[in-house]
Amino acid sequence: MQKRVGKQTFVFENAFVRQGFAIAGPKEKHGLLGDCFDFCLQDDKFGEKSFEKAECKMFKFAIDGVLNKANLQPQNIDTMLGGDLLNQIVSVSFAMRAYDSSFLGLYNACGTFAESLLVGSCLVDGGYKNKVVCISGSHFSTAERQYRYPLELGVLRSPVTQWTATGAGASILTNESDNAICKITKGVAGRVIDLGIKDVNNMGAAMAPAACDTILQFFEDTKAKVDDYDGIFTGDLGKLGRQILFDFAKDRGIDFKDKLFDCGAMLYKQKQQTFQGGSGAACSAIVFNSYILNKFKQKKYKKILLVGTGALLSPLTSFQGESVPCIAHCLEVCSC
Amino acid sequence: MQKRVGKQTFVFENAFVRQGFAIAGPKEKHGLLGDCFDFCLQDDKFGEKSFEKAECKMFKFAIDGVLNKANLQPQNIDTMLGGDLLNQIVSVSFAMRAYDSSFLGLYNACGTFAESLLVGSCLVDGGYKNKVVCISGSHFSTAERQYRYPLELGVLRSPVTQWTATGAGASILTNESDNAICKITKGVAGRVIDLGIKDVNNMGAAMAPAACDTILQFFEDTKAKVDDYDGIFTGDLGKLGRQILFDFAKDRGIDFKDKLFDCGAMLYKQKQQTFQGGSGAACSAIVFNSYILNKFKQKKYKKILLVGTGALLSPLTSFQGESVPCIAHCLEVCSC
Repeated sequence: MQKRVGKQTFVFENAFVRQGFAIAGPKEKHGLLGDCFDFCLQDDKFGEKSFEKAECKMFKFAIDGVLNKANLQPQNIDTMLGGDLLNQIVSVSFAMRAYDSSFLGLYNACGTFAESLLVGSCLVDGGYKNKVVCISGSHFSTAERQYRYPLELGVLRSPVTQWTATGAGASILTNESDNAICKITKGVAGRVIDLGIKDVNNMGAAMAPAACDTILQFFEDTKAKVDDYDGIFTGDLGKLGRQILFDFAKDRGIDFKDKLFDCGAMLYKQKQQTFQGGSGAACSAIVFNSYILNKFKQKKYKKILLVGTGALLSPLTSFQGESVPCIAHCLEVCSC
Repeated sequence: MQKRVGKQTFVFENAFVRQGFAIAGPKEKHGLLGDCFDFCLQDDKFGEKSFEKAECKMFKFAIDGVLNKANLQPQNIDTMLGGDLLNQIVSVSFAMRAYDSSFLGLYNACGTFAESLLVGSCLVDGGYKNKVVCISGSHFSTAERQYRYPLELGVLRSPVTQWTATGAGASILTNESDNAICKITKGVAGRVIDLGIKDVNNMGAAMAPAACDTILQFFEDTKAKVDDYDGIFTGDLGKLGRQILFDFAKDRGIDFKDKLFDCGAMLYKQKQQTFQGGSGAACSAIVFNSYILNKFKQKKYKKILLVGTGALLSPLTSFQGESVPCIAHCLEVCSC
């Protein structure tokens, strides 16, 4: 079995998605996909003393939830892999105290969930592990105070901003096809693209070129076409970023037609005033583990691309006048 | 080929270390291993305006250095993988702007270099990639002001502290045996262990049980013994942490005898007043890519274990009263 095609594309034969679980916040519950999620918080502190502890608890809840849905015990899982947006990915790392599985911490900002599926697929397809859990997520209130301003300041938001989604998504990947919802058949790890954007409010514009670069690489390597897919789902470009990607790709010979969706832009209603829609590591993690997996279960999708997008900045680099390097990882997901 | 043995151990057949490169800071230059490093900084700002930019430059220097030593061009590398200790692993992420290879960001604190060798070995041994660069490192002055106090405060240090090493190490892994220095034959991804230590000055004590857990798992899975190895190198437990691991393992039936070394404890001279020795992601990265690879080149080593150790905390979790979860990843490295 050939494990790669073209310059950068991984090929997987035995990387099956057994089950997924999505937990989301109260705002997401009242958004466009509120009915899809497995569980929604009533209040975004989730009964904890701090938002950070609530975020950590969401991760444990998502892991326990996906294990429960798949009728598995924690000891059935060899390795868990993923990350979050907090400094030192502490939400996932602290959640791991509750489990005996080995842990690989990953960080590619909001592209971390796609990264975890990519690395996880290598582990199970390569025969190194039988079952892994891939996890990522984010929390509006922890991200806001770490990356932007204290919530109490009530700072006015720019019209190009997005709203960091609250939620966590977990998927079980395995090399066994039994009871699988779908399978991961190909993937591309993206390269870092920085076109010099310094406006930290406009992450969609910064990330769109990285998404375009990875999708073009995938199409070049695999000879696939837009029409082969039921949908191409970017992680969290938001409405503006999605439009920039659409135009950017068209200039480079790829017409997405009506196939381009953005997980962030899908989350909220207009009246919820998130401006460009959702952002954050939760976007692709919760949309993949609810809406997208549901479509596969209902046999409505045969093949999609998931393109996790990440802006690799920190407040410190912005304060030091740096632009925003971005990355995107792409996965081809097919019905079994 | 069996790709795993026992409960948690990866088995690799085709994961060769083609070349390594270590860049270190001025204090490390004057330490015990100063003559081993490929390049040492004269001043730890490395001609840049900030310590953070200097750290990023070290990563690029290490990547360019290892490519040069291996007589390879950047375009020969499929993927680079690694991370650092700064929030959002910005040193590595920003360094990646200079390269066209794909990038997988990893974070397991000071265990990140071992994690990158583990994931990198899966990528090349599994046939997904031909050549990857694994990289990690740290910088005393960026870590100090992010994790502890502004340098200008001149805070007195506790006698159990370690000194964050300045440096970066890069290795090229490939599935081709030509010109290889050594090969990675097995590995264990560790689980998160937290015995409740809250003293953020005493990272060695917090990490030692995680190192013990991973080494015991490796020995259980592989039936290997201490005597099979020329040395067992932990990442950055420091002198005290190394002693704790020694005693901890002895209680559990493993006598390390004279085989246990700690990369952090190996770095500095007594008079350099680092107290327990070095810490930081640089420790295992620069010692592996200089001292250890040199021993393999000189045919003085046949088989070693590298056990990268990481403390998965952030200042925020400590301020919120949390203890310190830790992790360790183990690799068996053999002569070719």
